[in-house]
Amino acid sequence: MIYLDNAATTKPSGEAAAAMIKTVECFGNPSSLHGLGLEAEKLISSARERIAGMIGGDKKQLYFTSGGTEANNMAVFGAAMAKKRAGNRVMTSQIEHPSVLEAFSRLEELGFDVVYAPVGEDGRVDIDGFRALLTPDTTLVSIMHVNNETGVIQPVEELAELAHSAAKDCVFHCDCVQSFGKLPVNVRRMGVDMVTVSAHKIHGFKGCGALYTGGARLTPIIYGGEQQNGVRPGTENIGGIAAFGAAAANCSCKPDNMRRLRSLMSGLLTESVPDIKINGSDEHNSGSVLNVSFIGIKAEILLHSLERHKIYVSTGSACSSHKPQPSHVLRAMGIAPKAVEGAVRFSFSEYTSEEDIREACEKIASEVSIIRKYMR
Amino acid sequence: MIYLDNAATTKPSGEAAAAMIKTVECFGNPSSLHGLGLEAEKLISSARERIAGMIGGDKKQLYFTSGGTEANNMAVFGAAMAKKRAGNRVMTSQIEHPSVLEAFSRLEELGFDVVYAPVGEDGRVDIDGFRALLTPDTTLVSIMHVNNETGVIQPVEELAELAHSAAKDCVFHCDCVQSFGKLPVNVRRMGVDMVTVSAHKIHGFKGCGALYTGGARLTPIIYGGEQQNGVRPGTENIGGIAAFGAAAANCSCKPDNMRRLRSLMSGLLTESVPDIKINGSDEHNSGSVLNVSFIGIKAEILLHSLERHKIYVSTGSACSSHKPQPSHVLRAMGIAPKAVEGAVRFSFSEYTSEEDIREACEKIASEVSIIRKYMR
Repeated sequence: MIYLDNAATTKPSGEAAAAMIKTVECFGNPSSLHGLGLEAEKLISSARERIAGMIGGDKKQLYFTSGGTEANNMAVFGAAMAKKRAGNRVMTSQIEHPSVLEAFSRLEELGFDVVYAPVGEDGRVDIDGFRALLTPDTTLVSIMHVNNETGVIQPVEELAELAHSAAKDCVFHCDCVQSFGKLPVNVRRMGVDMVTVSAHKIHGFKGCGALYTGGARLTPIIYGGEQQNGVRPGTENIGGIAAFGAAAANCSCKPDNMRRLRSLMSGLLTESVPDIKINGSDEHNSGSVLNVSFIGIKAEILLHSLERHKIYVSTGSACSSHKPQPSHVLRAMGIAPKAVEGAVRFSFSEYTSEEDIREACEKIASEVSIIRKYMR
Repeated sequence: MIYLDNAATTKPSGEAAAAMIKTVECFGNPSSLHGLGLEAEKLISSARERIAGMIGGDKKQLYFTSGGTEANNMAVFGAAMAKKRAGNRVMTSQIEHPSVLEAFSRLEELGFDVVYAPVGEDGRVDIDGFRALLTPDTTLVSIMHVNNETGVIQPVEELAELAHSAAKDCVFHCDCVQSFGKLPVNVRRMGVDMVTVSAHKIHGFKGCGALYTGGARLTPIIYGGEQQNGVRPGTENIGGIAAFGAAAANCSCKPDNMRRLRSLMSGLLTESVPDIKINGSDEHNSGSVLNVSFIGIKAEILLHSLERHKIYVSTGSACSSHKPQPSHVLRAMGIAPKAVEGAVRFSFSEYTSEEDIREACEKIASEVSIIRKYMR
């Protein structure tokens, strides 16, 4: 099997699985006053310390959630609602993940003045376009670190600085689901307030993520007991959290290897397959995603023909793949409909090998030529 | 170890652990279009079918969440918001779990007319008091099935019938976190619309629950991709869900064994420990919880002295045990402050044995007498 769909999800590592299984014995409720509760609480605080440490943050400001989607919602609704009296203007970009875009679209329904920063053909948020939309009463900006469909790194440092200097009361949220563990993520260096991370993109289990709040005051979206200071109540997912900590400990945060793989694959495909287009900036790429348009081919057909060789890839992002709509990311980049239709996402992990890439490229070249022959 | 804190959380069963570990290999994103996605999707739909089947419901109306707290919030906010135009009156009881009570308290802040049904000294919602608060424009009622601090079974059938006949547009939600898998729970027989269930109370893992919506229209609390029809987006916690399904398959839903244990313990303590009070109805009890007040003793002191014998119990509920407030449940039942202060919760599982109970009672009797001696 050659698994090139790591932006959708990754295989849990041995360390993550061991941490999960440890909670079958260490199963106490972290809120219980007795020793079993305390042991469980220790697993949580050690994972919290590790993850907060990796992003250069204060562990007291990291809250575990059920995943990236909930963390993004918590950030967007939480900050917009808490700052309602300070202003009504909130901002994001056209290429965010659905969990950010749909939350902003709900804010529109609730009467907020929502603006969407444009992106260039390289897949990066346009800095001038962003600046033009900033107003002094903007209370919230949410821009992702690395795009999930193209792997393009956004100019977050510049945007955060612009936002904070133009709007004094603005909270800057950065969805780092696709960058955490792969690139260095540091809240201070990036100048961002809130950060979303997720376990299952870095070889943890699905069902666990976290929001770093940077001390921003948030109106909760979930109410209940006193867990996590009431900011995110509910009995903690100890197994998922312990596994997240173990998975995070394994991350190199060094993108060189993946960048090498991406450029190998990009080169091989360009050589061997006619009529393709690499989407998004090569220069500003995390290395974890290669998005390629096979002109004249429906991406889903290629996906299924590769699957017969046990090569797993995706069309657009997984979270909207059952919704047959052309990618909002590629459209925002101004890519022609024909190229959007034929766009396939290859995404790598630290365990992807050069051999995987070479074999996949051979199969892709032959399948593409077969599909094109039949389509004529 | 004698673990008598099963209402706080339970030890994952071998079957649940095996189901979780299976997802290390079967790790696809259920939204992916390829075969790995499909395999993961099958794990979810088989768990969904089993759990919906157990409550006599339609599998299309069961949505997995991060746990009971999120499911309760989804039900309370979801229904109140979706029915805002039909009415402003919503109702719950004084003895609900914090994840219901705090959600209603937030609805008060948002301008809803919230009323709280009173309870009798037996720990049951008072039917006349409930009826008196019902208005024709009530849109939502949320009453739990079994109380988490006393084990008392609420007269849900009667209350649901009253609500539906008095208020035509009313959605009835029932938090079944403490009853699911232990007592028969059937949405039709109970006459309820929505039901909350949780995995970690029935030997599944923490971090997974579900809301059965009964087709009620809900305003989401989390927005994002197309997962779970957009009703509850976010990549599904496959491991937790598969383990939940496996744990549910092991449930007997027959309370006789636990009722026997409860009455054994209640009898032994009454014989051997002076000045105690059993809280809540014996007749209407799930059998899974025995709540006892040791008059003149601070419950936390007894908890820690039992802990030295590896006997684990709790004071009130785990989710608020770090908040040093007297139990809102026992206070609502009109129990004297001295008795509330000395209330300890013993809670059982299908794995609790008679020997566990006998040994625990011996140790309790001797520890109570030591504590009382020192306190004089």
